Amino acid sequence: MKIAVDGMGGDHAPGEIVKGAILAAREHGVDIALVGPEDRMRAELAKHDHKGVNIEVVHAPEYLVEGEHPAFALRQKRNASIIIATKLVRDHKADAVVSAGPTGGVVAAALYLLGTIEGMSRPVLGGTFLGFAPNTIVMDLGGNVDCQPHHFLDFAVVGTVYAREILNIPNPTVALLSVGAEEGKGNTAVNESVPLLKQSGLNFIGNVEGHDIPMGKANVIVCDGFVGNILLKYTEALGKTIGNWLTGKIDGKLSADEAGKLVRELVMATNVAETAGGGPLWAVNGISVIVHGRADAHELSNAIGQAKFAVERDLVGLLKKELASARGKAQGSP
Amino acid sequence: MKIAVDGMGGDHAPGEIVKGAILAAREHGVDIALVGPEDRMRAELAKHDHKGVNIEVVHAPEYLVEGEHPAFALRQKRNASIIIATKLVRDHKADAVVSAGPTGGVVAAALYLLGTIEGMSRPVLGGTFLGFAPNTIVMDLGGNVDCQPHHFLDFAVVGTVYAREILNIPNPTVALLSVGAEEGKGNTAVNESVPLLKQSGLNFIGNVEGHDIPMGKANVIVCDGFVGNILLKYTEALGKTIGNWLTGKIDGKLSADEAGKLVRELVMATNVAETAGGGPLWAVNGISVIVHGRADAHELSNAIGQAKFAVERDLVGLLKKELASARGKAQGSP
Repeated sequence: MKIAVDGMGGDHAPGEIVKGAILAAREHGVDIALVGPEDRMRAELAKHDHKGVNIEVVHAPEYLVEGEHPAFALRQKRNASIIIATKLVRDHKADAVVSAGPTGGVVAAALYLLGTIEGMSRPVLGGTFLGFAPNTIVMDLGGNVDCQPHHFLDFAVVGTVYAREILNIPNPTVALLSVGAEEGKGNTAVNESVPLLKQSGLNFIGNVEGHDIPMGKANVIVCDGFVGNILLKYTEALGKTIGNWLTGKIDGKLSADEAGKLVRELVMATNVAETAGGGPLWAVNGISVIVHGRADAHELSNAIGQAKFAVERDLVGLLKKELASARGKAQGSP
Repeated sequence: MKIAVDGMGGDHAPGEIVKGAILAAREHGVDIALVGPEDRMRAELAKHDHKGVNIEVVHAPEYLVEGEHPAFALRQKRNASIIIATKLVRDHKADAVVSAGPTGGVVAAALYLLGTIEGMSRPVLGGTFLGFAPNTIVMDLGGNVDCQPHHFLDFAVVGTVYAREILNIPNPTVALLSVGAEEGKGNTAVNESVPLLKQSGLNFIGNVEGHDIPMGKANVIVCDGFVGNILLKYTEALGKTIGNWLTGKIDGKLSADEAGKLVRELVMATNVAETAGGGPLWAVNGISVIVHGRADAHELSNAIGQAKFAVERDLVGLLKKELASARGKAQGSP
């Protein structure tokens, strides 16, 4: 099995990325296609012992940088490392791509080069939302901002596969995010989704409200990418705001070490995507694994391990099968 | 000026409510119509010196209790105190109604008895959202779950009047809540609202994202009641969750007093509506002031002061005028 690694993606690229790729080759027994400017890739490789592992360098002269508009940057940089790496998957020269680069760029490359699964027009993003509710996924957090009921059904299936395969939750509970737990207390899209979810064969428990998110009331909480993105960014900022407030309040009362640790823990728990997030990009017709930008060698190796698991488990095929089943059952709904 | 007070609304009714009504009569120089079971109202009045103030008891044999379904309860209890009190306003026997009772009941009574301002179908709820951003209002937090662009325009006008009249912000900035600050990064309803807001004559600064809420980037942040309600309830629960986590973390490191104060402050800042919220119910064709359920006599008196201000300032007339102006200007938008 060969994993294409975006050698220039991430805050600590290329150093930690190359180191992580070597680590993964040993730990997970995979071949690596290391994609980036050849001289820089070779210079990093030379710093480490990489005997006995199979790492091929694939030259990509350009790369994305954080803060660029992803779609615009990709049009300008047709030989960016994330493009070349994703093309290896498209052309069956690698089984999966792994990147710690800007999420928008990884998503755009996957969308344009690998395409999406039938019936889904955009990748679905989501995962553990809050450190305080480690078994709760919120989906979609991404680009699906205008949703029809069939989108919610698809997100519910993706979330179920995610929770079962990645979080090892046997029969994940699924809920629609709404303004009241009672049926009928929602907007039109949510209300029309309820019968679909009920018939889907998924473990649908009804609607949950905003206060149920931190309580982890369901394993998979389904919402459109508009609500999800607002919640995600709000949570990140609120966590940091409370962290700053707390720093001021406990100054001099706790040791600097203790205070720092406390605030860091709070910021981690409210900034999961940024500090520990990642995972396979769902709804894409191929395996693209995103790692958060701050990833070190160890985290990158873990992500490569995830990619290997996704290939072995055939997560794309599995998702297609589950989507077909849920959509078929939901079609029979009133 | 006469203010109708729901004598049975609130966690501390009727004791603190009656006490607060007497206090308000003195502090704000208003007449009071105290609405509730006559014997209970008189028994409470007898506990206090109320010479020289004009308090009339209006009998209402029934009242709502927290946890009932408001619309259902109001159909059952046609002589509930909130109904009788709101009818006094409808029938021009009082200038405003003030209640610390269940929000759903106060809203339903206002909606059915006073009706809404032309072009608005439901009351608009909102106010200071977070203690960390005291000059930022989020609107709507209420029942307007499916919104068209003209709703967003109306919420922006309501928010502007609120921020200017209640928070004393001279030229409040207004923003649409979205998934990106750039124009076009939103769902259809938001994108279609941008030209209306631009032409409205309001101080529209564009779109803000989830992370801009705690930063107080705009004075008025406009969203539909679906997103607003989810954000509100999520914030309340997340604040409590972080409070519980913090309690465990600082146990033994701060004194019990200090720890309790710290956590209370956090919960207050994230539960503004519940702990300090209230204000006039907007879009209603009459003045109905909501006070949070835990209100004591002093807070109830403040709310009665707010009601007096709303009557004197003619907030309903003012809002109608501003709505007409903004709608007229926005009509000329492309």
